[in-house]
Amino acid sequence: MSVKQRAAKLLTEVREQVPLVHNITNYVTVNDVANAVLSIGASPIMADDVEEAADITSISQALVINIGTLNKRTIDSMISAGKKANEFGLPVVLDPVGAGASNLRNETTKAIIEQVKISILRGNLSEVSFVAGLDVATKGVDSAEADEENDAVEVAKTVAKRLNCVTAITGAVDIISDGTSVVKIANGHKMLSKVTGTGCMTSALVGAFAGVSKDYLTAAAAGVASMGIAGEMAYEKAGNIGTGSFHIAIIDALSNLDGKTLEEMAKFEEE
Amino acid sequence: MSVKQRAAKLLTEVREQVPLVHNITNYVTVNDVANAVLSIGASPIMADDVEEAADITSISQALVINIGTLNKRTIDSMISAGKKANEFGLPVVLDPVGAGASNLRNETTKAIIEQVKISILRGNLSEVSFVAGLDVATKGVDSAEADEENDAVEVAKTVAKRLNCVTAITGAVDIISDGTSVVKIANGHKMLSKVTGTGCMTSALVGAFAGVSKDYLTAAAAGVASMGIAGEMAYEKAGNIGTGSFHIAIIDALSNLDGKTLEEMAKFEEE
Amino acid sequence: MSVKQRAAKLLTEVREQVPLVHNITNYVTVNDVANAVLSIGASPIMADDVEEAADITSISQALVINIGTLNKRTIDSMISAGKKANEFGLPVVLDPVGAGASNLRNETTKAIIEQVKISILRGNLSEVSFVAGLDVATKGVDSAEADEENDAVEVAKTVAKRLNCVTAITGAVDIISDGTSVVKIANGHKMLSKVTGTGCMTSALVGAFAGVSKDYLTAAAAGVASMGIAGEMAYEKAGNIGTGSFHIAIIDALSNLDGKTLEEMAKFEEE
Repeated sequence: MSVKQRAAKLLTEVREQVPLVHNITNYVTVNDVANAVLSIGASPIMADDVEEAADITSISQALVINIGTLNKRTIDSMISAGKKANEFGLPVVLDPVGAGASNLRNETTKAIIEQVKISILRGNLSEVSFVAGLDVATKGVDSAEADEENDAVEVAKTVAKRLNCVTAITGAVDIISDGTSVVKIANGHKMLSKVTGTGCMTSALVGAFAGVSKDYLTAAAAGVASMGIAGEMAYEKAGNIGTGSFHIAIIDALSNLDGKTLEEMAKFEEE
Repeated sequence: MSVKQRAAKLLTEVREQVPLVHNITNYVTVNDVANAVLSIGASPIMADDVEEAADITSISQALVINIGTLNKRTIDSMISAGKKANEFGLPVVLDPVGAGASNLRNETTKAIIEQVKISILRGNLSEVSFVAGLDVATKGVDSAEADEENDAVEVAKTVAKRLNCVTAITGAVDIISDGTSVVKIANGHKMLSKVTGTGCMTSALVGAFAGVSKDYLTAAAAGVASMGIAGEMAYEKAGNIGTGSFHIAIIDALSNLDGKTLEEMAKFEEE
Repeated sequence: MSVKQRAAKLLTEVREQVPLVHNITNYVTVNDVANAVLSIGASPIMADDVEEAADITSISQALVINIGTLNKRTIDSMISAGKKANEFGLPVVLDPVGAGASNLRNETTKAIIEQVKISILRGNLSEVSFVAGLDVATKGVDSAEADEENDAVEVAKTVAKRLNCVTAITGAVDIISDGTSVVKIANGHKMLSKVTGTGCMTSALVGAFAGVSKDYLTAAAAGVASMGIAGEMAYEKAGNIGTGSFHIAIIDALSNLDGKTLEEMAKFEEE
């Protein structure tokens, strides 16, 4: 089966198995993240106090760590939950939001990577480049434009090899790599950058898919493609109304997405 | 007057009196909670720092405590605000989100109940069963299915008697009890479980109704029925579009709900 | 050029320059704030830990401080970021949400004003009156009704002179003043008070405009007028559907707003 066919199958499995996805995330986009997880057929749970983070991870099928509104209170929770996920063999998705933009984010990203085995790293080119140890100027969290597709492929491969994980760099063309294989995804719409949280939602969707399969390359591709396809459908429906309606239409599209549609609409290029 | 007629009357009173409802709640669904409170005609205020929680309660007509994203910083605030509400004779609604899922949630739920007199406890069957001291497996916060209606009646009565409060267990059929009387509510739609926060919103609506009446059985029934009816109306309007549009349509329906419609649509069975 | 013409021009400049707006804000309305900033053409970033707040301000074009869900953890961040903005000559917008409602909010508002030079103060009449040192009863955060237009003009002027800033008091008629000039804005719709966060979004929009111009009187007027006009457009489109759809239509309207429309629809009275 191709990655595309496997991704379509995974979507069906998410809807059947309803994995519980533990998110330690930011308060800006957390409501959309929860609704995105529900819309794809999984179940979200948010818990970020260090006294319960690991407990909640232990009853979940996946952990998603997002540093979007990082604070010192939750850093220990992220690491504690991450270690528990590693101990239980659960997938850990890391979204290093704004890595490169402040020392706190940089140091925290490093600390998490040092102490927790990451299964899938999902970010924009500048964030993932920071993880790769490259110098890249960061301008905010809503500005990722992976217009340099070739760079993204190299960065994705480098990071995937170094961390022994799957890397997903989202941009005009999304790049997914496990260090060897590369999947390029040409879905999505530029209007997605006009709604906050589409990146965070993508990471949580990836977590939902990883919650039902150890095939993390496919899980990452399925999550990224789901958001891209939802963006296309939402643009078709509400693109000319405004970004508020487009935002709602993204969730509508995710809630209606099935494996057949994903397979038909996904624009994957597998290398 | 029947509970249904009293609930309809209470809705009119909420819209006339605009009670201020203090919510100490989670950051996942807080925006929906505030908008739900506004949509039913009340006024929301959120404040969770221990240095102001009791002050804010003292200018409010009701307090709603929701442990959805519990953290150690706000536990003291919940108790401080709860004691102030007790001192002032204000209603306290407790939503023990995810009780049973972690030690922190369990211990906090116990601590709140020990130190604060609860007026209305609102949760799903597993959460309220935990409070009742029963062993129930919890699977996340969006998974309550009170398919065992008889169990729910027993649990609701038991907890209501033990805490001398009104208990509202929401599920396929909602059960409201003060320990003696039981109101069963058959409104709602299963799609409500596909949007995060419908439970949290319900608890806040209950707080709005309790803010204008000491008849907490009716206040609980009115809040629960309002969400159920809004769910039915929203499904009628947006059920086939997707969960994003359904979510918005819930708030639309609440904002249009009046006493007459509540009385016509409410499916109450009073025992 | 009139203030109205300058405001229209500023909107074009925001869309061209995409200023990065750092918000230290509350978790109730933060998602709407981020989407409002995006919809007007700017870029939002939220960061509130004291270890990174100043760092993030230093890469931004404006700072917006909102005390809506104040807690002790973030007070130091607000002051630290504010001082950095002052050092860098960046605009600081302060939204003293609920000032007057608790000692914590009162003391924090005072502390911020003492330690940070505010460029634009945006609040309702009771909040700004508190800053002016006047006794005004506060009833929640969604209840501002500046029905006493003359009072508002006096309060706005007084505070603007005392703090050497621009003051924007939003209400039925919005009052903007730098202590000498006064702009009255008659846009808006009362339904805006039925959606939480329209005040917070307004302050963030003001921050976006201030991020591209030192003409803070115009920036404040442009931000306030944008929300008022969006409210009118949203009411036209969704006013009879409900407050959920109206909420979404506000963001739609902001995302479609251009300088020409702002100039045509703005109802400014300049004194």
